[in-house]
Amino acid sequence: MESQSAMKIKEACGVYGIFHPNGEDAASSIYYGLCSLQHRGQESCGIAVCDTKGPKGNMNAYKGMGLVGEVFKAEILEGLHGNLGIGHVRYSTTGATTLSNAQPLVLNYIKGTLALAHNGNLVNTQDLRCELEQTGAIFHTTTDSEVIAYCIARERVNTHNVEEAILHTAKKIRGAYGLVIASPRKLIGVRDPLGLKPLCLGKRGSSYIIASESCALSATGAEFIRDIRPGEIITITADGITSNCQLCHKTHAHCIFEYIYFARLDSTLDGVNIYDARIRAGAALAASYPADADLVTGVPDSGIPAAKGYSEASGIPFALAFYKNSYVGRTFIKPTQKERESSVRLKLNVLESVVRGKRIILVDDSIVRGTTMANLIRMLKNAGAKSVHVRVSSPPFLYPCYFGTDIPSNKQLIASSHTADEICAMIGADSLGYMRLEDLPSMADHLPLCKACFDSQYPMDLTGCTEDNKQ
Amino acid sequence: MESQSAMKIKEACGVYGIFHPNGEDAASSIYYGLCSLQHRGQESCGIAVCDTKGPKGNMNAYKGMGLVGEVFKAEILEGLHGNLGIGHVRYSTTGATTLSNAQPLVLNYIKGTLALAHNGNLVNTQDLRCELEQTGAIFHTTTDSEVIAYCIARERVNTHNVEEAILHTAKKIRGAYGLVIASPRKLIGVRDPLGLKPLCLGKRGSSYIIASESCALSATGAEFIRDIRPGEIITITADGITSNCQLCHKTHAHCIFEYIYFARLDSTLDGVNIYDARIRAGAALAASYPADADLVTGVPDSGIPAAKGYSEASGIPFALAFYKNSYVGRTFIKPTQKERESSVRLKLNVLESVVRGKRIILVDDSIVRGTTMANLIRMLKNAGAKSVHVRVSSPPFLYPCYFGTDIPSNKQLIASSHTADEICAMIGADSLGYMRLEDLPSMADHLPLCKACFDSQYPMDLTGCTEDNKQ
Amino acid sequence: MESQSAMKIKEACGVYGIFHPNGEDAASSIYYGLCSLQHRGQESCGIAVCDTKGPKGNMNAYKGMGLVGEVFKAEILEGLHGNLGIGHVRYSTTGATTLSNAQPLVLNYIKGTLALAHNGNLVNTQDLRCELEQTGAIFHTTTDSEVIAYCIARERVNTHNVEEAILHTAKKIRGAYGLVIASPRKLIGVRDPLGLKPLCLGKRGSSYIIASESCALSATGAEFIRDIRPGEIITITADGITSNCQLCHKTHAHCIFEYIYFARLDSTLDGVNIYDARIRAGAALAASYPADADLVTGVPDSGIPAAKGYSEASGIPFALAFYKNSYVGRTFIKPTQKERESSVRLKLNVLESVVRGKRIILVDDSIVRGTTMANLIRMLKNAGAKSVHVRVSSPPFLYPCYFGTDIPSNKQLIASSHTADEICAMIGADSLGYMRLEDLPSMADHLPLCKACFDSQYPMDLTGCTEDNKQ
Amino acid sequence: MESQSAMKIKEACGVYGIFHPNGEDAASSIYYGLCSLQHRGQESCGIAVCDTKGPKGNMNAYKGMGLVGEVFKAEILEGLHGNLGIGHVRYSTTGATTLSNAQPLVLNYIKGTLALAHNGNLVNTQDLRCELEQTGAIFHTTTDSEVIAYCIARERVNTHNVEEAILHTAKKIRGAYGLVIASPRKLIGVRDPLGLKPLCLGKRGSSYIIASESCALSATGAEFIRDIRPGEIITITADGITSNCQLCHKTHAHCIFEYIYFARLDSTLDGVNIYDARIRAGAALAASYPADADLVTGVPDSGIPAAKGYSEASGIPFALAFYKNSYVGRTFIKPTQKERESSVRLKLNVLESVVRGKRIILVDDSIVRGTTMANLIRMLKNAGAKSVHVRVSSPPFLYPCYFGTDIPSNKQLIASSHTADEICAMIGADSLGYMRLEDLPSMADHLPLCKACFDSQYPMDLTGCTEDNKQ
Repeated sequence: MESQSAMKIKEACGVYGIFHPNGEDAASSIYYGLCSLQHRGQESCGIAVCDTKGPKGNMNAYKGMGLVGEVFKAEILEGLHGNLGIGHVRYSTTGATTLSNAQPLVLNYIKGTLALAHNGNLVNTQDLRCELEQTGAIFHTTTDSEVIAYCIARERVNTHNVEEAILHTAKKIRGAYGLVIASPRKLIGVRDPLGLKPLCLGKRGSSYIIASESCALSATGAEFIRDIRPGEIITITADGITSNCQLCHKTHAHCIFEYIYFARLDSTLDGVNIYDARIRAGAALAASYPADADLVTGVPDSGIPAAKGYSEASGIPFALAFYKNSYVGRTFIKPTQKERESSVRLKLNVLESVVRGKRIILVDDSIVRGTTMANLIRMLKNAGAKSVHVRVSSPPFLYPCYFGTDIPSNKQLIASSHTADEICAMIGADSLGYMRLEDLPSMADHLPLCKACFDSQYPMDLTGCTEDNKQ
Repeated sequence: MESQSAMKIKEACGVYGIFHPNGEDAASSIYYGLCSLQHRGQESCGIAVCDTKGPKGNMNAYKGMGLVGEVFKAEILEGLHGNLGIGHVRYSTTGATTLSNAQPLVLNYIKGTLALAHNGNLVNTQDLRCELEQTGAIFHTTTDSEVIAYCIARERVNTHNVEEAILHTAKKIRGAYGLVIASPRKLIGVRDPLGLKPLCLGKRGSSYIIASESCALSATGAEFIRDIRPGEIITITADGITSNCQLCHKTHAHCIFEYIYFARLDSTLDGVNIYDARIRAGAALAASYPADADLVTGVPDSGIPAAKGYSEASGIPFALAFYKNSYVGRTFIKPTQKERESSVRLKLNVLESVVRGKRIILVDDSIVRGTTMANLIRMLKNAGAKSVHVRVSSPPFLYPCYFGTDIPSNKQLIASSHTADEICAMIGADSLGYMRLEDLPSMADHLPLCKACFDSQYPMDLTGCTEDNKQ
Repeated sequence: MESQSAMKIKEACGVYGIFHPNGEDAASSIYYGLCSLQHRGQESCGIAVCDTKGPKGNMNAYKGMGLVGEVFKAEILEGLHGNLGIGHVRYSTTGATTLSNAQPLVLNYIKGTLALAHNGNLVNTQDLRCELEQTGAIFHTTTDSEVIAYCIARERVNTHNVEEAILHTAKKIRGAYGLVIASPRKLIGVRDPLGLKPLCLGKRGSSYIIASESCALSATGAEFIRDIRPGEIITITADGITSNCQLCHKTHAHCIFEYIYFARLDSTLDGVNIYDARIRAGAALAASYPADADLVTGVPDSGIPAAKGYSEASGIPFALAFYKNSYVGRTFIKPTQKERESSVRLKLNVLESVVRGKRIILVDDSIVRGTTMANLIRMLKNAGAKSVHVRVSSPPFLYPCYFGTDIPSNKQLIASSHTADEICAMIGADSLGYMRLEDLPSMADHLPLCKACFDSQYPMDLTGCTEDNKQ
Repeated sequence: MESQSAMKIKEACGVYGIFHPNGEDAASSIYYGLCSLQHRGQESCGIAVCDTKGPKGNMNAYKGMGLVGEVFKAEILEGLHGNLGIGHVRYSTTGATTLSNAQPLVLNYIKGTLALAHNGNLVNTQDLRCELEQTGAIFHTTTDSEVIAYCIARERVNTHNVEEAILHTAKKIRGAYGLVIASPRKLIGVRDPLGLKPLCLGKRGSSYIIASESCALSATGAEFIRDIRPGEIITITADGITSNCQLCHKTHAHCIFEYIYFARLDSTLDGVNIYDARIRAGAALAASYPADADLVTGVPDSGIPAAKGYSEASGIPFALAFYKNSYVGRTFIKPTQKERESSVRLKLNVLESVVRGKRIILVDDSIVRGTTMANLIRMLKNAGAKSVHVRVSSPPFLYPCYFGTDIPSNKQLIASSHTADEICAMIGADSLGYMRLEDLPSMADHLPLCKACFDSQYPMDLTGCTEDNKQ
């Protein structure tokens, strides 16, 4: 059951910040914003708020393990007073899932108080951490995010304001980051110079919002203004917005996986609409791996849009072939080994009348271990499908990601030790086609991409980057 | 948020029973079975089990408010020993949602112990209850189900076995019922003579299963054997299956709403596949209410299959126009009045790139108050839809249901006081078409139907049936 | 740890009822009242209330497993509207501790609604239950209390009012009972004709209260009016109090164990103050079993008052020899076998400076298995006590109780198979003295007593009383 | 209700550390140890453990709000592997009660990992914090303890081992502290040079224990070895114990309040038995403030021992005058203003038969606001007491404590604005006597004491100590 979600590639985090100049409490807006980013992280979440008109340095925060709707009850939200704040949803990408690693981080240092929420991963963490430790730093967590916060605090001592300290910090840190930072009077957003991680700006009435994805704007009634530029530091205060683009360069490398799987269907990142991208992915598959079939279907929910794209491009009818039981959730009791066989259709059941006697094209966004796909194919064939042609809307994973995407280790990745033909046989498919590398650019509308997990062309120097940095 | 689910027509219950002759514990099977029936009731659930080889009369039960996955934790399931058992999921169709009304009912009476789970509603409850009270009956709950159990206990005194008592009871009670009953050595299923409520028989290995829907069989690896016949009493013991069809008549009246909305897509009830029925519903709408449009879409999740049927019949492409946030669930904090406007897209957000500039056909299974539909239309138009033609895969509700379907009162039903044209204007649609009464028979493959909520042709005498019987 | 409380004799229940003629909600008063009776039962509790000015038959109830303070949260209490109500705290005296056996019972029958809470045990339950089942009764619980409620409902059919039905019922049931009953307009208290179980009447402002013990009155600011007479049925309505004494006889038999252990120190039952009775018990022990010692101490908390009495009568100074850790409670993790030895002093630790070099008299109210006492003696001696003389403020248990006191089975009772001398040796005491049977009357100020657990002189015919009736 | 405990002087913390050289898990021992120190802090607790034979730097920790028995469930304890560990119980002495301030602190720094638990308060926190912040320190909490940990981490860079870093830190910090520190291979205990806070060493089998009080040893089956010397740093490794006494001076100042109220009755701190000290306190009161009375009683539980001492010295009999309801606990629903009057006797009820017609001496350890004492006197007089003479086993609080004792602000302290005569009248006592300053030395057996809260003779320079340092 759980193995299906366990077997998906994981994104590390989502961030959200809001400033209500009219003094309205921010916690409730952050709650709904985080809810719209919940797909980016389900293991812990947190909110930190402060009152821009109150005494400086009072930051109220609450964090917990679980979904936003589980962690934040009405009485907790009501206790979080303050009109400026940030929030975070998180996957634990390291082994230990602990509350102490939950974000936002709230820190007290010589110049006051700071809250920080981070999406992404640095590649020079070890160096920075060592350097900081050499001069006496102590860490409460094992996160990159604490290293960033620590750098800011150190830099702040000799700078005029927190933005300047952030700029100095941004010059030191290398890697992927979308940051929202709350200092007592300012909401600040920072995006890494390559734009590996997404971050955008929105507005609702007089309030400004910074969020990982545009869906967090549209779902909460806010207007999308623009993406934060790669390398940009954007500062929102009672006086309005200022931007610092000293670190903005021409070379960008947006993470391809946002377009393949992470981002929500209804988001638009760096000008590319996610739904459209996935439609194009399906179309590309249809062109490169056509099949003689009666219908195209997708693995719910991640394979549906690319299946739709395949259908549109090929003219083969799109069909819903599975019922997904949305009540089988995170806290479900896992079947015992003995019960496994009888419960394989508990989460997804096949619609027999749809598939009986049919030649089927089955689309998903990726194959990790292959076991889930093998089960689905067996289910389809048991229900009478004549053939099942698998199409995958991403190339095979072959290389580690150092920027915050949690790709299972080589041993678990079926593609790292088997050819497509071998995999096709192993999962019991009649044919198997992976998205071709050369089709990725057009899928993402020719945005500059990081697709190192497929082709090992890392967009930055990884010297000093240990295996520990690998997510 | 919640208003969307609050505004759906509600089914009362789902039931599941299993007998493991090999002595295996039944609780875990019931857990997964109830999970597959969760769509039939989400407010409370319960399991009662007994050991057919242990001392008679030991019935272990556990009930709670909430979803199956919330109520039953591993340690509770492990404590429920016994190889024969039944389970129940429930909507409270009366005002008070109390644990004491949760099922299964477990009773001790002169002849031993009995557990009973009931889907449906009687129309002569008041008479029976009065009659029983006259001779001293006391009731712990306000449910019909206790009245049925009580009748059985009374009849049992002068009969040879529990099946005979059930038969006598079935002759007295009038209404809709799918019952599973556990007596210490027997699993018994009973279906009302009109077949208003569904009930079917399955098998996994040596174990027999009785369940409200076939999806509870296929989802848990069991084989569908046949539907329980309307009026049939089926008894499963260590010696096998026996059937009593003394009350089986030729006149049947299957609830149309199972085909329109209640039953799961992957179930087949009385020979009619639910998915196929909804595809036919869409096709009928396409025939009776065609529209000049660029795409057909459905309200997730209930309107999707009929939209697919409309698309197939009309040749207008099927599209996914909404993203549904599955993390916005039952326990979510409802937005305040002030936040309402900014949160209308929290649960469902429109895929702008799909709908922009398009003429859209939007299909759902019903319109209750009209507010949800009005919101969706506004969202589509704000996202650039040129026109929105609404098609509803059921006729307008006009009459109360006395058999266990929870149709809101007239005041809340927009169709009870407005014409289709008025409703079309109120919700801001460009055209509105309801499923025609005359298309219902072919939708359900010419099964004999109860469609009294649409045409007031009640399939039985309702004398003595008070408003209290109306769900 | 838990073994100490596990090894105490258990009372079955406490009951509390209140009627606020001014319309004030009763739930909060019942909450505090039950809290004052918590010592009488800690496994489940419940409250049922109704509005005497509202429609008849609306009884709101809530029950749960655990302490009053755990089960009833503010939002639950606030939801329990009604100015008349009853409450119950319960030990499960049968093996199964289940929520379905929790009280008050709330019943619907021909004449309306009834809530009932019961302290005690009947001896003719089986006969009554059989008789009721013969005429078709079905039971939801395995409690005596449901049998009583059922009798009342049956009798109510042919009587003029509920008091009359209760009177007829009281004529049929034999055993021990303190009952509080809420019918929609009346609060009724009933006490068994022998007065085995206590019940008293109090008043606060215009409100009347019926409770198991007077401490529930004084602790909540109410005035004690009088004990309910054995056999009396007392009815409180908006029109005042009426009493029916048709079943009041001269022969009484108050349970001796209320005076020895069950009742709270600050209660006065049937004119005898509990604290004074225990002081007298200690004095009697001092007279019958003197000892040459330096100090007298009691096992906290149950042995303290008798120790005080022994000290006063003997002139030997009273001392506190133990520290009791009140944080080691019900939910504490029990030490493993391996840790047992190092944790024996976790709940009670000896005050070494008090006992070093001293000859000690150690008083407790009873010895059940002897293991706790043996541990305490060892602790005292390890701390330097020169000798430990054990005095027990009750005679040895030798016979079962059929009236609701949960005395462990013979096998667990050390006194049932060993002489006092043997026990003295087994627990490592230097001498051992049990309260003498002949001293019990003066202890309870010559009230007529049931002391059958010590002398087998049962105060009523036990014909038809099976072992199942034994608590 | 709660006002009684709310009105007690609060201790900040208790600490406990253990090292099992045999590899046994430490968490369970720490659990029981913390339980024995629960009286020192009830708002949060935590445990951190590591495996001395595993890889360095793996520290497993769990913290939560509430009592030890509430926070630590069996499955959590079982997950805390490691044979060396420390634990902490805490009162929040600052306004905000937050989980992030709970201890032990677990830190990662250049030289590895460190866990630290702290009882006490520093007076030069602000200076140290500023100094650290100047060089870039960032803080996650507002506790002194983080400042100490930070100093250690900084010092560690230029020292050979953690003990040396601790020594350097101890030279810098001024104030009160009992520390237990777990470094991956070492358990370290540190006590402030004045010995303001207690700390002692114990042994069970081959395992060493460091704890705030000796009761945590005896209650868990360990043997008391000795108190940690003021200024001593004691290090326990697999090789045994080493001690560093470089900071041990001749001038000591033990906190008088440990003897008056904080420490458990069964502890012995710096050679003085707590129970004996309180007996002597009562005796001193009897000598300085005799009264013509029939009995002496104490306010449960804190006033009982001194009442016993008064009784012994005066020859006036000791009595128990109150029943304390131990079920009225932390989570109890507080009575509304309206219910207040009727619930004043809910937690403590008077034993009328004891006090009626008597002249009573009522002893408690302190008077804070006076409201609780006024209530008790009223209760005694309502129950028929002829007179109530109050004796307090400490002098009046007049000055703030800077070392970790939470004395309410002047405005709440009745003694800061009223004479004893005025207080006597305000609480309705017949006479009032406070412990005399000159009797304190003999009470604590002539140990050198800090009694600055009574006489303002602070044992160290408070320059730079702001009001924020005042607890």
